[in-house]
Amino acid sequence: MKKDYQKLSIIAHRKARGKISVIGKLPVNNREDLSIAYTPGVAGPALAIAKNKALAYDLTATKNGVAIVSDGSAVLGLGNIGPEAALPIMEGKAVLFKRFANIDGFPIVLSTQNTDEIVAAVKAIAPTFGGINLEDISAPRCFEIEARLKKELSIPVMHDDQHGTAIVVLAGLINALKVVGKKKESIRVVINGSGAAGVAITKLLHHYGMRHIVVCDSQGIVSKKRGKLTPVKKEVIKITNRENISGSLYDALKDSDVFIGVSKGNLLKAIDIKTMAKKAIVFAMANPVPEIFPGEALNAGAAIVASGRSDFPNQINNVLVYPGIFKGAIESHTSKITEEMKIAAAKALAAVVKKPTATEIIPDIFNKKVVLAVSNAVKKLAT
Amino acid sequence: MKKDYQKLSIIAHRKARGKISVIGKLPVNNREDLSIAYTPGVAGPALAIAKNKALAYDLTATKNGVAIVSDGSAVLGLGNIGPEAALPIMEGKAVLFKRFANIDGFPIVLSTQNTDEIVAAVKAIAPTFGGINLEDISAPRCFEIEARLKKELSIPVMHDDQHGTAIVVLAGLINALKVVGKKKESIRVVINGSGAAGVAITKLLHHYGMRHIVVCDSQGIVSKKRGKLTPVKKEVIKITNRENISGSLYDALKDSDVFIGVSKGNLLKAIDIKTMAKKAIVFAMANPVPEIFPGEALNAGAAIVASGRSDFPNQINNVLVYPGIFKGAIESHTSKITEEMKIAAAKALAAVVKKPTATEIIPDIFNKKVVLAVSNAVKKLAT
Repeated sequence: MKKDYQKLSIIAHRKARGKISVIGKLPVNNREDLSIAYTPGVAGPALAIAKNKALAYDLTATKNGVAIVSDGSAVLGLGNIGPEAALPIMEGKAVLFKRFANIDGFPIVLSTQNTDEIVAAVKAIAPTFGGINLEDISAPRCFEIEARLKKELSIPVMHDDQHGTAIVVLAGLINALKVVGKKKESIRVVINGSGAAGVAITKLLHHYGMRHIVVCDSQGIVSKKRGKLTPVKKEVIKITNRENISGSLYDALKDSDVFIGVSKGNLLKAIDIKTMAKKAIVFAMANPVPEIFPGEALNAGAAIVASGRSDFPNQINNVLVYPGIFKGAIESHTSKITEEMKIAAAKALAAVVKKPTATEIIPDIFNKKVVLAVSNAVKKLAT
Repeated sequence: MKKDYQKLSIIAHRKARGKISVIGKLPVNNREDLSIAYTPGVAGPALAIAKNKALAYDLTATKNGVAIVSDGSAVLGLGNIGPEAALPIMEGKAVLFKRFANIDGFPIVLSTQNTDEIVAAVKAIAPTFGGINLEDISAPRCFEIEARLKKELSIPVMHDDQHGTAIVVLAGLINALKVVGKKKESIRVVINGSGAAGVAITKLLHHYGMRHIVVCDSQGIVSKKRGKLTPVKKEVIKITNRENISGSLYDALKDSDVFIGVSKGNLLKAIDIKTMAKKAIVFAMANPVPEIFPGEALNAGAAIVASGRSDFPNQINNVLVYPGIFKGAIESHTSKITEEMKIAAAKALAAVVKKPTATEIIPDIFNKKVVLAVSNAVKKLAT
């Protein structure tokens, strides 16, 4: 019998009253302690930072921490459940930031889903933190919000649903291509889903050198022939569908080498996988129900299958990426997380698996080398 | 030789890299743990809160926590040193919230000192928290910011520099009056300083029943005769200076029973104290240099002297108040911290000292009864 993790989770959350705790790192047992941790001594660090803002990284914890910011509009696969309901997920990310990268994560959920107001709020609180992890903000607003914040802030900003996902997908693909002996330049890639993750994956794979990418959305293949493309899809079309084909997802799949699903469950059947090229790679990442279950895809001839689930091999999970990305970015005081850093992070993450196999294209999150590999890759490119 | 606490504080902050740490309360040692603390289980608490927002208090830590919000415009006695430099003080408050009330405090410093932008930013992040502790925001903006947020938010908002100070002053006065055997209705009170603390003290003492209060600012006694009073001083004048006197601070002091200084150091000499009524009470709270040093005031005949310093008896310190106030407000899910709650908190704090004496009008912060007394007083009045 499958465990009811939602129920177990509610019990655990209720017992602990949430998942995080803000504790003090200096003792406060007597007046002497108070004089150092608080007044009058605290004027010392305050005045030092007033003279040189960069000292906030040496003398405070928050400036080495990450704000985990959501408006609750696209939470997990649950949709627009609002800010309060998003809090358990933001606290979860804070727990994982601490556990895997020793970074202090600060949940921030917002009472607004207006782009201008979100940008203004994040800009207002930005001096507090070393970085901003945008989380569970729906497309297409997430693209503009991230772009504006990246432009206007001098601390790293990353929408994890976009780039965390894209980086771990690329890492998995790098190793999967090794296993099946195919080259990035020649493979045909179908990406189903043109939301936050789909668009970011498309851009990163293209930047990495993949040249034959076709993106599908709920209406099928995204092509120039379709009228009324959104601004984001107009960008996507510039780097995809070079042959300008039209049709359905199933048309796109024919003879393709890679399927990447970031859409919804139960879209594909064995017969669809069979139309793909030999040694096909299937990343069926819809959660909790994948586009096709791993066993079915393998039975239909796929060489490598990955999913978002922890109960199958090859789990494509952002937590492999974001702790290390922010650790590297904050420790190097870089102001931007660049495309080059993302690709370097993906390569480093892939390289943690010494000998990739069909059932191990991506390392386990509890592998201690993961965070260091990713953070060091980011740091090397920091300026 | 006096210790250099600022230097010791810098050393301690540098060594620990700040003062707070956001730790996880649920274990993350294997995939099973991850399934409960994060996906897929976390959908359980998220969906429960989506159905009933109030469950955020049961299932998350942040919703039981307090945002400690500052724009860095009036930090300690250091002035407008900016948001980053204010961080050590905000982290210090987080440490004390945890130490004394087991409340999670989340520092938030702002990139703006514009009233509208501050109000908008705090409203935007409000769903995250159980309460908002405004901190070190300069007058007169602090009055409007607090008033607007109290009106527009359904969680408790308190500017600690105003009300934390006012409550602990009232608690000290309650006991001081017992010691000298005077009555609140008949005493003459001089308050020097009409900033955040001075105004809040004035209002609270008046609300408590003191009827002979005179407020002074840098130009002397605040009276109707003076033209061009600020909106805040126009409010102050409605409840003070009934005899409509004019003159200097020193004129006001003559025959007064209580002096409350929240202004600047070295304003008073022995000769000024000698003009006060018999059994005078002197609260010289300017920091770090008081309006008059306790020894000098006592030598000049004052019956009771309090200050803001930890190295003299009767330290008037906000930390006696704010942990308990927010603990009571959050645990009772009250939406407002009312004047009645503040007075009840002051009475409860005063009552912690069983037999007040000239050198013990206020309890020690390490007295474990303090936080419970204050929080229970607030809870009793919560609706």
